[in-house]
Amino acid sequence: MASYTFRAFGLDETLAMIKRLGLRKITFKSMHLPLESTPDEIRAVRAKVKEEGLDLYAGGVIYMRTEGEVKQAFEYAETAGMKIIVGVPNHELLGLAEKCAREYDIRLAIHNHGPTDKLYPTPESVVEKVRNLDKHVGLCIDIGHTIRCGIDPADSADRLFERLLDVHIKDMTAAAVEGGPIEIGRGVIDIPKFLRTLIKRNYAGVVSLEYEKDEKDPLPGAAESIGYVRGVLAGL
Amino acid sequence: MASYTFRAFGLDETLAMIKRLGLRKITFKSMHLPLESTPDEIRAVRAKVKEEGLDLYAGGVIYMRTEGEVKQAFEYAETAGMKIIVGVPNHELLGLAEKCAREYDIRLAIHNHGPTDKLYPTPESVVEKVRNLDKHVGLCIDIGHTIRCGIDPADSADRLFERLLDVHIKDMTAAAVEGGPIEIGRGVIDIPKFLRTLIKRNYAGVVSLEYEKDEKDPLPGAAESIGYVRGVLAGL
Repeated sequence: MASYTFRAFGLDETLAMIKRLGLRKITFKSMHLPLESTPDEIRAVRAKVKEEGLDLYAGGVIYMRTEGEVKQAFEYAETAGMKIIVGVPNHELLGLAEKCAREYDIRLAIHNHGPTDKLYPTPESVVEKVRNLDKHVGLCIDIGHTIRCGIDPADSADRLFERLLDVHIKDMTAAAVEGGPIEIGRGVIDIPKFLRTLIKRNYAGVVSLEYEKDEKDPLPGAAESIGYVRGVLAGL
Repeated sequence: MASYTFRAFGLDETLAMIKRLGLRKITFKSMHLPLESTPDEIRAVRAKVKEEGLDLYAGGVIYMRTEGEVKQAFEYAETAGMKIIVGVPNHELLGLAEKCAREYDIRLAIHNHGPTDKLYPTPESVVEKVRNLDKHVGLCIDIGHTIRCGIDPADSADRLFERLLDVHIKDMTAAAVEGGPIEIGRGVIDIPKFLRTLIKRNYAGVVSLEYEKDEKDPLPGAAESIGYVRGVLAGL
């Protein structure tokens, strides 16, 4: 679960809702664990998540616009015990980010943000930039922003699979720039095709739900989305 | 959607939640339309449901323990525009109920209530009683109460298909008398097998969700359940 789903809620409510959904693996967005937290603050949240029986496997989306922000992100992730940073590093910082990813042994999964994003609009634009970097650097495919570029997420995941480190799953109202978030199964993305592709390729990573609709009351739509994904997997 | 799911809520909230779930066909339980309502009261609710774009296709579960209750149920259903009564008639009233079902042209789908029910514990026990009656009388299979008898709902629906008029879909924690309600997909019922059976037999009726967990806050679990069913159907 990408905790951005619960961006209008505090940490305790967010953890309770994730548990109610029967999920275990979390990506924290900064409102649930601020990037500028002290190491002690980070360790306290890390312990709390663990006590709840949850796995804080990743953090993000984290923007990295300066060398300082790159270093801060990896320090933060290491202290929090995260195995992946879902990030958006400026192009000129990719060398430093790669170096940090290797040194900290934390993978950097760069997140595509759709047709209006200047840095990484498509999954392809991510992989073009990281193709020659260490395998610690790869792609977090956001299938909503992918379909907003008119690209089928299943084809994209298949083609770029060697660099696929993380997944943000969601659904959209239209395969166009104006597409907005909607409960999974009610939108235009072929979710069974996407999940079949991950299974065919033996994807071993996490599929995180990022449900962006209903900011003030996201639980029913998130639950419907999770149910849909589980149902597709059961029906395949 | 079986409105018993929202038994702790009034009519307006119930209709709003059903719409939010993207559902259209409703079975009203009596707290949302009391059996003793006047014809004008029933017509007012019928009009309200229609204005909301929903289809009040059935009522129930309605118990019929006296001749008066049989007649009341059919008058009520006719005034409400219901095509099906999901009912539990006493055995000695089956003749009268059959006569009413034919005269009103409203189907009576008898609901199995599990191992502790003296009248209709299993789907089989319903069909034994109605086998020689007019085809207006048949079965509403409650797959939760079916699995609580240790019977696979898919096998049951297949075997009794000729008399299958309505379905209450749900999931249970155990295939035993002590099994309790749970979000669909988290329990023990093989939902893909059940839905495949309905498709194979070209079932043309309604599949109503009856979500009995979380009485005071049923929307997230109902949403997860609906998502799961939609996902299974998409993945098949």
